[in-house]
Amino acid sequence: MSIPNGHQRRPRILFAVTGSVAAVKGPEIAVRLVKELGFDVRILLTHGGENFWNADDEWKEWQKLGDPVLHINLRDWADLLLVAPLSAHTLAKISNGLCDDTLSCVLRAWDYGHGLRPGKPLLLAPAMNTAMWEHPLTKLQLQTIQGFWNTADTTSRRQQLSSSSTYNDDESSSNDNNTVHIISPQVKNLACGEIGNGALASVDEILKVCRSHAHKR
Amino acid sequence: MSIPNGHQRRPRILFAVTGSVAAVKGPEIAVRLVKELGFDVRILLTHGGENFWNADDEWKEWQKLGDPVLHINLRDWADLLLVAPLSAHTLAKISNGLCDDTLSCVLRAWDYGHGLRPGKPLLLAPAMNTAMWEHPLTKLQLQTIQGFWNTADTTSRRQQLSSSSTYNDDESSSNDNNTVHIISPQVKNLACGEIGNGALASVDEILKVCRSHAHKR
Amino acid sequence: MSIPNGHQRRPRILFAVTGSVAAVKGPEIAVRLVKELGFDVRILLTHGGENFWNADDEWKEWQKLGDPVLHINLRDWADLLLVAPLSAHTLAKISNGLCDDTLSCVLRAWDYGHGLRPGKPLLLAPAMNTAMWEHPLTKLQLQTIQGFWNTADTTSRRQQLSSSSTYNDDESSSNDNNTVHIISPQVKNLACGEIGNGALASVDEILKVCRSHAHKR
Ligand SMILES: Cc1cc2nc3c(=O)[nH]c(=O)nc-3n(C[C@H](O)[C@H](O)[C@H](O)COP(=O)(O)O)c2cc1C
Ligand SMILES: Cc1cc2nc3c(=O)[nH]c(=O)nc-3n(C[C@H](O)[C@H](O)[C@H](O)COP(=O)(O)O)c2cc1C
Ligand SMILES: Cc1cc2nc3c(=O)[nH]c(=O)nc-3n(C[C@H](O)[C@H](O)[C@H](O)COP(=O)(O)O)c2cc1C
Repeated sequence: MSIPNGHQRRPRILFAVTGSVAAVKGPEIAVRLVKELGFDVRILLTHGGENFWNADDEWKEWQKLGDPVLHINLRDWADLLLVAPLSAHTLAKISNGLCDDTLSCVLRAWDYGHGLRPGKPLLLAPAMNTAMWEHPLTKLQLQTIQGFWNTADTTSRRQQLSSSSTYNDDESSSNDNNTVHIISPQVKNLACGEIGNGALASVDEILKVCRSHAHKR
Repeated sequence: MSIPNGHQRRPRILFAVTGSVAAVKGPEIAVRLVKELGFDVRILLTHGGENFWNADDEWKEWQKLGDPVLHINLRDWADLLLVAPLSAHTLAKISNGLCDDTLSCVLRAWDYGHGLRPGKPLLLAPAMNTAMWEHPLTKLQLQTIQGFWNTADTTSRRQQLSSSSTYNDDESSSNDNNTVHIISPQVKNLACGEIGNGALASVDEILKVCRSHAHKR
Repeated sequence: MSIPNGHQRRPRILFAVTGSVAAVKGPEIAVRLVKELGFDVRILLTHGGENFWNADDEWKEWQKLGDPVLHINLRDWADLLLVAPLSAHTLAKISNGLCDDTLSCVLRAWDYGHGLRPGKPLLLAPAMNTAMWEHPLTKLQLQTIQGFWNTADTTSRRQQLSSSSTYNDDESSSNDNNTVHIISPQVKNLACGEIGNGALASVDEILKVCRSHAHKR
C-alpha cells in the first residue's frame, strides 16, 4: 500500500475497528485517511468488528522460530494506532492487559514510551450506548490506559489516578506528555434509540486528530 | 409471556444462569418465579450455562441502523435482573467491564442509578467451589460491583472500597442505597465433594429476595 | 503416570503451557522433570498452547451431580503447579480472576493458603516480547497474584501493593512467606527479532526452582 516518495515515506496508521455499531463508519474513515491525509493505512478488525482476525490465525501463519510475529510486525510498522470505534469490551481488555486477538496483542506490546523504546501515539475513539458510556468503569479504564504512557514507576501512576477526582477528556488528552489521545464521543440519537452521549465522534473530528499526530512525528 | 392485567402489568425479571454446577436449580427457580411470585420471566444463558446465546447471535439478528439491539432491549424490558447461579468467571467479567456475551453486555449497560436514568435492582447469587469463594478476589469484585451503584464520582467510590477492611455481605447488601444485592451462598456438601461455603443459596431465599425487590418498584 | 514407591509417592507437578513462543521448550521441561527430578507430571495446555482443553471439554465429561470436576481434581492431585511459559494473556486472566479454560479454573480454585486449606506452591515463568514485559501492568499483575498468598485481609494486601514502589523479582519471590514464585525471564534475542528482557528463563533455572519447592513439601 505504501508508495515510495523520494526519501520520505507516508505516515503509517494502523486503523482498528471493534464491534460497535459505529463500525459502519469504518470505510469512510479509511478512505479519507488515504485521500485527504495521505496516510499509508492498514486495517485490523476484531471479531466483533465482523471479520475474525485473531491470534489463532496468527499461529497458523507462524511455523518456526524466526518467522515473523504478526502483532509485533504491525506494531513496528505503524507510526500511530487509531481504534475507531473503540467498544466497551476492547476498552476493558486493554486496560486489564488481556490479549486474545491481534488488536489486543498489538496494544499489549504497544510502545507507550516505557522502557527504552520511543512512544507512538495511540488514538482511541470510544462509541457505545449512553448507559455504557456513563458506567463508572469507562472513565476509570480510559484513565488507566492514559497512565500507561511513559510510566516506569507504576506506583506514582496509581497515586495520580486516584487523586484526580475530575476527569476532563479534552484537557488530559491534549496534554503533550500523554500521547494516548481520547477522541471523545458526542451526544446523538444512538442506534439503540436513545438520545445521549456515547456516539462516535464525527469523522471530521477523527481525521483532525489523526492529522495532528501525523505532524508530531 | 406477559399477560395484560387491567392497567397493571406483572413485574418483569430477567433471569440469567451462568456455568456453575448450581445451574441445575435453574428450572425450579424459573417455575417458582412465575407460579409463586407472578413474575414475567425471561431467561438468559451464558455459554457456560450450556446454551450459547452470545453477542455473535445478536449481530446475526441485527441488519441495519434502526434495528433493535438485543442487550439494550432486554435491559429496558426488565424491572430487575437476577443472576443465579453467578459463576466466578462472570463475576470477574462484570467487575472488570468485559462484555463478550449477551448477559455481560446487559450488565455493562445496566441502570445502576448513575447518569440520568433511574436504577434497577441487580440480584447476584454466587455459587462456586469453597476455595474459589474464599479467594481474596471474590469479595473485592462483589464490592466493586456494589460500588457501581449511583456513583458519579468514581474516586470516592475507590476510597470507600479501600478503607472498608471488613466485608459483611448481609449488612451491605440490605442497604437501601445500594440496590446491587448479593444473595450469599451457603455452607454445604459441594458438587466437587468438599464441605464448605460457596453453595448456591436456597431457592426459598432467592425467591424471598426477588419478591422483596418486586415490591420496591 | 504415578509409580508406587514403597510408602512414599513421587511429588506431583501440574505443568501448564500457555501460548508463548517459548512453548517449544515444553517437551524438554516435561522430560527433565520426570527423568532428573523424579516428578509425577501432568500436562495442561491452554488454547494458545495449541491444544484446546477448556471448560467446555470439562462439561462434556461431566454428566450429573457427584461426577468429578476436572479442575478441582487437578488442583487436589497436584503438590505444586508450574506455568511455563506464562503468557501475558493468562497472566492478566489470573490476576483478574477470569476462568474460561481449565488452567484458569485450576488457578481460580488454587490453594493460596487462604481459608482453612494449606497452601501449595505456584511457580510462574513469564515469557513475552520485551515491550509486553516492560508494560506497567506486567509487574502490577505479578504483584497482585503474589498478594493472593495467605491474605484473609484484602485491604492490607492492596495497601502493601501500592506502597511498594520498587519491585525486585528475586527478593520477593524467594520470600518464604510467599509461595507464589516468579521465575524471572532473561535477556535474549527474542523470537520476534528483538534483543531484550522477556525470554523464558533457562530450563536449568526452571528445574532448580521446581526441585527446591519439591523439597519444601
Ligand atoms: C447490534 C449491536 C450493536 C452493538 N453496539 C455496540 C457499541 O456501539 N459499543 C459497544 O461498546 N458495544 C456494542 N455492542 C456489543 C459488542 O459488539 C460486544 O461487546 C463485543 O463482544 C465487542 O467485541 P470487540 O470489542 O472484540 O469488537 C453491540 C452489539 C450488537 C449486537
Ligand atoms: C463440572 C463443572 C462444574 C463447575 N462448577 C462451577 C461452579 O459451581 N462455580 C463456578 O464459578 N464455576 C464453575 N465451573 C467453571 C465454569 O463453568 C467456567 O469458569 C466457565 O468459563 C464459566 O462461564 P460463564 O461464567 O460464562 O457461565 C464449573 C465447571 C465444570 C466443568
Ligand atoms: C507467533 C506468536 C508468538 C507469540 N508469543 C507470545 C509470547 O512469547 N508471550 C506472550 O505472552 N504471548 C505471545 N503470543 C500471543 C498469545 O499467543 C496470545 O495472547 C494468546 O491469546 C495467549 O493465550 P493463552 O494465554 O490462553 O495461551 C504469541 C502469538 C503468536 C501468534
